[in-house]
Amino acid sequence: MSNNTLSITNLYTHISDDLLAMEEKLRSLADTSLMTGPLRALVDHITTSEGKRLRPALTLLSSRFSKCDSHKPILMATAVELLHMATLIHDDTVDNSTLRRGKATVDNLWGKNAAVLIGDYLFATSATFVCDTENIHVIKRFSQTISELSLGELAELFSAFEINQTMTDYENRIYNKTASLFYTATQSGAILSGADTTTITALSNYGLNIGMAFQILDDILDYEGTAEEFGKPVGNDLLQGTVTLPVLLMAKHSPQSVEKLKLFEEVGRTDRIAEFIKSIKDSSVLDESYTVAWNYIDKALADISQLPAQREKQDLADLANYLKQRKFK
Amino acid sequence: MSNNTLSITNLYTHISDDLLAMEEKLRSLADTSLMTGPLRALVDHITTSEGKRLRPALTLLSSRFSKCDSHKPILMATAVELLHMATLIHDDTVDNSTLRRGKATVDNLWGKNAAVLIGDYLFATSATFVCDTENIHVIKRFSQTISELSLGELAELFSAFEINQTMTDYENRIYNKTASLFYTATQSGAILSGADTTTITALSNYGLNIGMAFQILDDILDYEGTAEEFGKPVGNDLLQGTVTLPVLLMAKHSPQSVEKLKLFEEVGRTDRIAEFIKSIKDSSVLDESYTVAWNYIDKALADISQLPAQREKQDLADLANYLKQRKFK
Repeated sequence: MSNNTLSITNLYTHISDDLLAMEEKLRSLADTSLMTGPLRALVDHITTSEGKRLRPALTLLSSRFSKCDSHKPILMATAVELLHMATLIHDDTVDNSTLRRGKATVDNLWGKNAAVLIGDYLFATSATFVCDTENIHVIKRFSQTISELSLGELAELFSAFEINQTMTDYENRIYNKTASLFYTATQSGAILSGADTTTITALSNYGLNIGMAFQILDDILDYEGTAEEFGKPVGNDLLQGTVTLPVLLMAKHSPQSVEKLKLFEEVGRTDRIAEFIKSIKDSSVLDESYTVAWNYIDKALADISQLPAQREKQDLADLANYLKQRKFK
Repeated sequence: MSNNTLSITNLYTHISDDLLAMEEKLRSLADTSLMTGPLRALVDHITTSEGKRLRPALTLLSSRFSKCDSHKPILMATAVELLHMATLIHDDTVDNSTLRRGKATVDNLWGKNAAVLIGDYLFATSATFVCDTENIHVIKRFSQTISELSLGELAELFSAFEINQTMTDYENRIYNKTASLFYTATQSGAILSGADTTTITALSNYGLNIGMAFQILDDILDYEGTAEEFGKPVGNDLLQGTVTLPVLLMAKHSPQSVEKLKLFEEVGRTDRIAEFIKSIKDSSVLDESYTVAWNYIDKALADISQLPAQREKQDLADLANYLKQRKFK
């Protein structure tokens, strides 16, 4: 498959039945007797959102390196997607975002309070799906992941407009906020399929590195994307004071320009932000950021290189290469 | 012990060492390398709050009907209190409360965003403590409880100012919102101590009934208490449009007065609310509400009547009777 024709849905053909079973599970959440009136409409809105389903796909693909019934991987894939949805809802609430994937956010439609509580409900529901796998290691890892996700978000909030961050601070933050769940997604798929230790380690590391790359590319898109392709406003990170890789690299090149970031907090922002984004784009900072992301992708490819040559291995490799395309999207 | 001298701390003397160990675990959350600067101050603020520690006490007392090492019950007690703290923080955020237990709320001091995220972190951390018990039944029940808690809160939000609720709607709601965690608190203590099935059932039912009584008494206090003894404003439920037992009973006596509740949503509230509270106080509604609560307390006492006569049984009975005192507080 050439890079030009890569599309994310092409990567899902070998797991399409399992993904469909996961969608069914998601949609069934709105179909219980507990969900009536506006609450049902809210759960419907969430579970029919057009997500990329990237994380559950990673769980399902990772479960294919050992022969097993797909029941537990499907439970896990559902949990992983629900947890992702829960974090998106709370993130949008914290960020005051009005759009997500081009649709109005829960916060926007039902208000902050409903968003907080439905996020809690999805966190809890994701955990009950994981509990149904009855695998104590996977259950522990999952609760650890929820903890890491919220720590990542807390660190982001409490380090807003703080320009004296190190690269390690940034890496820890994006591991917690994003890569932790990718790591859990692939690891749990492998464990629940009964894979051997070498395979579990390879897939866990692949997930971790893909997750790191994914977040860095997302951070770059905040400078390069347009609101249409992104489904949310551009420059959002700067508005929130979130210091990401491009800012850290810019701080090396031009400490003076980054010092201004502090001012965003206090004075009229929009024109200053546009000016800062332009200075980033005019520099080599975004190319350097891509290099960092691509190094993680290359590591992910190396992680799975020793896995048996089967179609799901190719899918995982294609997925890694697909991420590289995001630059040209 | 006569009713006049009952104080909640007297009920904790036989489990004071275990409660102290729990407090240590709570406080250690602020002492990790992850917690720096304002985040550490936030976690410190939460974990040193002067809570009644009622739920963890129930777990610890329930673990004393079978000989066991107290390690797992202490883990569980910590988890139960952390989960309770997490729900309080999110509830205060949803309710825009500024005071809790007489102290400023997290929302008030650090803002809504920090409150949402630290609540998530405590949810997750509570789950990791439960996972450390490695008891799959307890872990499943705990995640079910988080789900029920958030469903209870969602039901409350989505049924605000809705006066056509049934008593069953109310009972389901207070089970989810409050009694579910009491049930889990006693049940998990019994299970983790290795108690037999009869003991587990007795203590589970005791917890459930105490929880129902506790919430009803709390709902009554919203009409009877003062801000000082309550640690939060009086009439708060009415301000939020939350329909509780006194309103449901008032609807039977005087449908007309309750119809006015709908108006609270639209027009200047304070004087109308004061008027409505007065009409509730002038009726027999609060006495009837106490009767409902006390029936649950009597059921709880019956639940544990067959347990062996040991000091922790007396403590649980005293605790039930202590709740009755809240009227005269």
